[in-house]
Amino acid sequence: MNLQQLIQEIFAKKSFLCVGLDTELKKIPLHLQSNPNAVLAFNKAIIDATKAHCVSYKINTAFYEAMGVKGWEIMEATLDYIPTCHFTIADAKRGDIGNTSSQYAKAFFETLNFDAITVAPYMGEDSVRPFLEYENKITIVLGLTSNKGAHDFELQKTGNQFLFENVISTISSWGTPQNLMFVVGATQTNHLQLIRNIVPNNFLLIPGVGFQGGSLQDVAEFGINNEVGLLVNASRAVIYASQHENFAEEAKVIASQYQFEMAQLMNHYLTKK
Amino acid sequence: MNLQQLIQEIFAKKSFLCVGLDTELKKIPLHLQSNPNAVLAFNKAIIDATKAHCVSYKINTAFYEAMGVKGWEIMEATLDYIPTCHFTIADAKRGDIGNTSSQYAKAFFETLNFDAITVAPYMGEDSVRPFLEYENKITIVLGLTSNKGAHDFELQKTGNQFLFENVISTISSWGTPQNLMFVVGATQTNHLQLIRNIVPNNFLLIPGVGFQGGSLQDVAEFGINNEVGLLVNASRAVIYASQHENFAEEAKVIASQYQFEMAQLMNHYLTKK
Repeated sequence: MNLQQLIQEIFAKKSFLCVGLDTELKKIPLHLQSNPNAVLAFNKAIIDATKAHCVSYKINTAFYEAMGVKGWEIMEATLDYIPTCHFTIADAKRGDIGNTSSQYAKAFFETLNFDAITVAPYMGEDSVRPFLEYENKITIVLGLTSNKGAHDFELQKTGNQFLFENVISTISSWGTPQNLMFVVGATQTNHLQLIRNIVPNNFLLIPGVGFQGGSLQDVAEFGINNEVGLLVNASRAVIYASQHENFAEEAKVIASQYQFEMAQLMNHYLTKK
Repeated sequence: MNLQQLIQEIFAKKSFLCVGLDTELKKIPLHLQSNPNAVLAFNKAIIDATKAHCVSYKINTAFYEAMGVKGWEIMEATLDYIPTCHFTIADAKRGDIGNTSSQYAKAFFETLNFDAITVAPYMGEDSVRPFLEYENKITIVLGLTSNKGAHDFELQKTGNQFLFENVISTISSWGTPQNLMFVVGATQTNHLQLIRNIVPNNFLLIPGVGFQGGSLQDVAEFGINNEVGLLVNASRAVIYASQHENFAEEAKVIASQYQFEMAQLMNHYLTKK
């Protein structure tokens, strides 16, 4: 799925929700845990329950790697199960020297057929370029993250700019809004307008609503553009909505609440623009 | 293997060589490529040939992930094959918000039993801490990398310091020389003395000799400390030393040449100190 198809889905569903599959065996409902394919069964149930309300799924590779070879198999099977009308993101935060980043790009864009991958910017241009070279694939570079540690380096000043501004403005010239997005934490809405000024047309992947406490209203107010330009991710708030047998229905309820609020925000902000 | 054991091995072998297993099917000798377990067979032959001359092996996860589930199996089998007297590094460059970094730490320190992992610093303290919490494991944070892209952000000024100085000095307070190393590219020897002044006692993992052109002599001159304090990595220069049937013997020759030069440098610099 490319960016134009994603935008079509967003307007068709009136949703810019991404559901994060940060699935951990010990956190899924007890009645599932004895199932030898518990994590995959859980993911499938969550996908079935939420797919009408979201436009994207984000697979956090850490949770699968923690299970070793078996986890990598579950990641593949989960990806295969996601309907083709959903935009798939490998939340992998990879990045290395050029010949190594080429291998990561191959891993997530060829061996696994994700639509997008998250990439860490620290090592600079040759660590990001190999991802951007893939046609119809999208590279999502860390800009300003949702965690407390963002203050350690991202919010340090380099010259007159915060490091994250420098990162976003520099990297924006390496790609186009068609193949490049940025991660901006939902807890960082005080900087969102500044970021939107630097990259008016790039999509932003916004984690941190729900469990981490970011506000969807603020994200839309400062981040929305004419093509929406936002993918808001919720992981734990959706997938762990209930620990009971009705976990999938409860996940659906939460996802549909996000979607309802997103539809209202799209109506409100896009008619004004 | 912990740091004291690594130091003992370095002095016993008079070597601070790390061999990087960046193994790619299409780059290994043609006569091996038809073997269904070509990559693992290649890695085993390289390990057998070089183990007397090096103290560490570094597995670059990208090259294994590019092969999917099969690659993850090969990574496990390769790790199992490395003798226990060698220090094992997952060159994975991971890093995410705290609960996700915990999963990466579990993946590489528990599910796989690596001694160390490389970690990206951009997201700050809570992205690094989960790795440092493992007793007798070592976290190796990116400081100043060997690639051209290091100029984009690492070599930008934050206040009076380069970003990499800020990163190394800030992060050095989160751990100790017992559980924390830094990556410094061998092509960055003009900054090595500065880095050694910031972290006089931490080991430095130095990639970039060989194929990338860094000088072992310069690395030792500016980086060595009383416990050597250096692990110098060579990947392509060793493992792809020959494309012929004698590839393992040629890898041994190159590894032994590095070891010979390292023994001379240890004699020269450590007797002077």
